[in-house]
Amino acid sequence: MPKIVDHHQRRTLIADALMRVAAERGLEEVSLRHVAAEAGVTSGMVQHYFRTKDELMGFAMAVVRERTEARVAAAAGRLGPAPAPGDLVRTLLTEILPLDEQRRADGRVALAFLAYAAVRPDAAAALRADTEGMLAFVAGLIATARPDLDAPAAAAGLLAMMEGLGVYLLGAHVTADQALAALDAQLALIFEGG
Amino acid sequence: MPKIVDHHQRRTLIADALMRVAAERGLEEVSLRHVAAEAGVTSGMVQHYFRTKDELMGFAMAVVRERTEARVAAAAGRLGPAPAPGDLVRTLLTEILPLDEQRRADGRVALAFLAYAAVRPDAAAALRADTEGMLAFVAGLIATARPDLDAPAAAAGLLAMMEGLGVYLLGAHVTADQALAALDAQLALIFEGG
Repeated sequence: MPKIVDHHQRRTLIADALMRVAAERGLEEVSLRHVAAEAGVTSGMVQHYFRTKDELMGFAMAVVRERTEARVAAAAGRLGPAPAPGDLVRTLLTEILPLDEQRRADGRVALAFLAYAAVRPDAAAALRADTEGMLAFVAGLIATARPDLDAPAAAAGLLAMMEGLGVYLLGAHVTADQALAALDAQLALIFEGG
Repeated sequence: MPKIVDHHQRRTLIADALMRVAAERGLEEVSLRHVAAEAGVTSGMVQHYFRTKDELMGFAMAVVRERTEARVAAAAGRLGPAPAPGDLVRTLLTEILPLDEQRRADGRVALAFLAYAAVRPDAAAALRADTEGMLAFVAGLIATARPDLDAPAAAAGLLAMMEGLGVYLLGAHVTADQALAALDAQLALIFEGG
């Protein structure tokens, strides 16, 4: 199936170029022309993958979502067959937090996409589904560990804290150590307190 | 002093036009031309206030910061002369959360600015100073109420949760009720728990 392989390679090539341009200039500044130049291909080829600004933004966010899912799955796998709920939640949250350059690049794209989607609610449907999935997953783990808590509220608060710490990390409002200290204090309140 | 009054009026006129355009199209799409058309003035007059994209973004963020400060100060004033630490923190956080249309418009601008500043760290200096001020203020109130907690970590986590809930509200990932439930659960953990 040479056509499918080719498609996947090209998509990866263009996705990588898009992310490099976005990390440097900001996603809102990215154009077809910039991405084509960075990837060393024609604008027409790039246009095959995204014809509009909406498609470009959605494509970049899809790349970030796929990379994040793969990272979380790999890290969760390393916890072994029956991890403690608190360990699983901590792994999920710290794999998403922009604590190294790769995750910072992903985080900048995600933040640009959030700002973009805030005035175009339709664009955020896939991201909303992700958040709902994460909320249900984390609420289930909290309910197991702490039946006395309002698990949906605690899960929403915990994931929101992670999002906010991500924003603070990208803007250098807090250091990585401060972000991890805040997150660990919260995980202790939820999973060890009570 | 007719010149100063005139300057203030013009700045307000342009700021309002800028915010209307930003709320509708997204801050990253805003141009001098759009703002001038919306304000019913010349591009040259708008250019007097911001000559570059950086100045435009900084101006919009400054408007949001001023409005937010005024709203927080007014709400804090209504709490009376010696409010409980938890009440003061709750007032601060809920005045910033995008729970109505005015605060949603401000929140969209703040989010666009955060995404913009994530690739231009110098642009975020004023915002970083705000965050540091808020962190110190909230940490002080937490330390008063809960000397057993790591107050800086708890304050960073609480403010990050507010930021993240704001992002979730703007993207319709959570409802206003869910955001307030998550925030109140956290405030209870910090100010009533222990």
